[in-house]
Amino acid sequence: FQFSLRSIGSSLVEGKCKPDMIKVIHSVKVGIALVLVSLFYLLDPLYEEVGDNAMWAIMTVVVIFEFSAGATLSKGINRGIGTMLGGGLGCLAAILADEVHGRISSAIAVSTSVFIFAAAATYSRLVPSIKRRYDYGAMIFILTFNLVVVSGVRADEVMKLARDRLSTIGMGFAVCIFTSLLVFPMWASDELHHSAATKFEKLACCIEGCLEQYFQTVDEKGKTVDFTTCMTVLHSKSNDQSLANFARWEPWHGKFGFSYPWEKYLEIGEDLRELAVTIFSMKGCLQSPTQATSTLKQSIKEPCELVGLSLAWTLRELGESITIMKKCRAKVLIFPKLQPMKLELSRVPFPSKVGEA
Amino acid sequence: FQFSLRSIGSSLVEGKCKPDMIKVIHSVKVGIALVLVSLFYLLDPLYEEVGDNAMWAIMTVVVIFEFSAGATLSKGINRGIGTMLGGGLGCLAAILADEVHGRISSAIAVSTSVFIFAAAATYSRLVPSIKRRYDYGAMIFILTFNLVVVSGVRADEVMKLARDRLSTIGMGFAVCIFTSLLVFPMWASDELHHSAATKFEKLACCIEGCLEQYFQTVDEKGKTVDFTTCMTVLHSKSNDQSLANFARWEPWHGKFGFSYPWEKYLEIGEDLRELAVTIFSMKGCLQSPTQATSTLKQSIKEPCELVGLSLAWTLRELGESITIMKKCRAKVLIFPKLQPMKLELSRVPFPSKVGEA
Repeated sequence: FQFSLRSIGSSLVEGKCKPDMIKVIHSVKVGIALVLVSLFYLLDPLYEEVGDNAMWAIMTVVVIFEFSAGATLSKGINRGIGTMLGGGLGCLAAILADEVHGRISSAIAVSTSVFIFAAAATYSRLVPSIKRRYDYGAMIFILTFNLVVVSGVRADEVMKLARDRLSTIGMGFAVCIFTSLLVFPMWASDELHHSAATKFEKLACCIEGCLEQYFQTVDEKGKTVDFTTCMTVLHSKSNDQSLANFARWEPWHGKFGFSYPWEKYLEIGEDLRELAVTIFSMKGCLQSPTQATSTLKQSIKEPCELVGLSLAWTLRELGESITIMKKCRAKVLIFPKLQPMKLELSRVPFPSKVGEA
Repeated sequence: FQFSLRSIGSSLVEGKCKPDMIKVIHSVKVGIALVLVSLFYLLDPLYEEVGDNAMWAIMTVVVIFEFSAGATLSKGINRGIGTMLGGGLGCLAAILADEVHGRISSAIAVSTSVFIFAAAATYSRLVPSIKRRYDYGAMIFILTFNLVVVSGVRADEVMKLARDRLSTIGMGFAVCIFTSLLVFPMWASDELHHSAATKFEKLACCIEGCLEQYFQTVDEKGKTVDFTTCMTVLHSKSNDQSLANFARWEPWHGKFGFSYPWEKYLEIGEDLRELAVTIFSMKGCLQSPTQATSTLKQSIKEPCELVGLSLAWTLRELGESITIMKKCRAKVLIFPKLQPMKLELSRVPFPSKVGEA
């Protein structure tokens, strides 16, 4: 058993684990975290300490525990800050409303403060830059502010309530962090890194596929390029953005140091998507009913294959250098290969020039 | 004031409102909903009815209230079903665990049930088809199940607790639905419809821009096509999918009947994205340092412009027909225009054929 666990662990580290296995591991981790947090209810000494507030610990675990460590951390920190800010401002508003004489005018003061803060925080949630990183925190701020300010009119011991609740939320957070970061952690940063490296490989395969299909002889007909991999690269933007967003919250681990340049991955992704567009646009050429004759195809085969295969090789080289995190020796490795290609390209007669002659 | 309200209303109906205005309206709506739900605390007769359970109504409003009516409904229904299912199964598990003799073995039974249900529900959340539509419901299921089953060991009156909580959640849901659907509703379906129609216009503009840039004379140099609109079409996939997802939950309203074919919008979007790829791949041609001579350009200008402008016109015609929801009379309007274009294209010498000659 220990051996199989270790093999899972090592394959996780190498990022080679099957997606299904990762899902099962995540589910088991959530189960463990919930059992741990349920102990606040189930064990008498713990229950005597926290009482019914243990509910908040359970709620925290259910709501915060996300697939990657970065997402969990981001949600947890957002929740913590939102709760404290909302609780603090809520207490202040409740005290101010208490100063107002008369039950009705006090209720009006509370309603007004609820309206203003809720509307302002909701508006901020619609601003893209805030939405991307602090959406959840703003929601928790609204919730806590509202709960504290309205119960402030009722309960005299808001402060004690707030302290108890915060401490149980903290306990829930601690359980989450423990299970998420220490038991087979799934890092968003690893996934982002892996996805950036595999994109190069996918595009290289696509280029090779296009070449093969275009220059196949009549009796080989039937082979078609699978453009779905190209499409996945094309549609990877939102996924990349959220991964980079979570990766920023993740602490120093493995090969990634502090203030690691995550936005570079987004820039690389943007460039690769442009390349994917170019490759995908060859689909129209490959599927067009009017095709060049096979003699013409044969005459351009050699330079085309030279260019295409050099490109694919360069992409693989770049992807490899990202995987092993070594600076790609472009001057030594890639330039000497691309230079003759450029020459070859300039020698190929430009179709429009031929048309002009 | 009434007049300005009416003008906002009419511009909302026509989908012409500025995005900022829509954001402000949404924020105000959230504020109103929260003030309404706070009345459970603030008004004595209501508070005597529901007591501290009013907290659940506030929480429901904060968590459920989303930008579009469809998203609010989807979250609300998910929350309702998740709570009932989780509560029901939680009660059952609590009663079964109670049958087990001994405090410790009962606690073990509870822990086991928490682990199994939490892990299973978490795994289901990772399945794409469930994640897309029932993610929130599954989360609420885990939360409610866990809370009910662990407090079942403590509280003898779980049923009463569950009933009270469900009824306050229902009240919160009712307030949400009232504010979201009846006060200036923002329909995801309207947005999806509008976005599909404008995509045609955006691509038509891009085609015209490409033509203009390619055939501009030397002294006009400097005009460049704005490919960002093309890019927004290219990256619209995830947004379209979530809108279509929410639109399915929205009740019959305006021009959209029951079982409206929302997936058709996704198919149209997919085709338009392929077209956007083709247009975007012209960027390389426009920005290439080797350009055809201006005499050659002039010689192909006429057929190219005929083709490009006919395409742009066809796209506008199709977009228009989606906007006004009338079947586009393709046979009468579009075919007679595209037929000569096809002839013209077959007459243009194929560059590769020229090369062969």
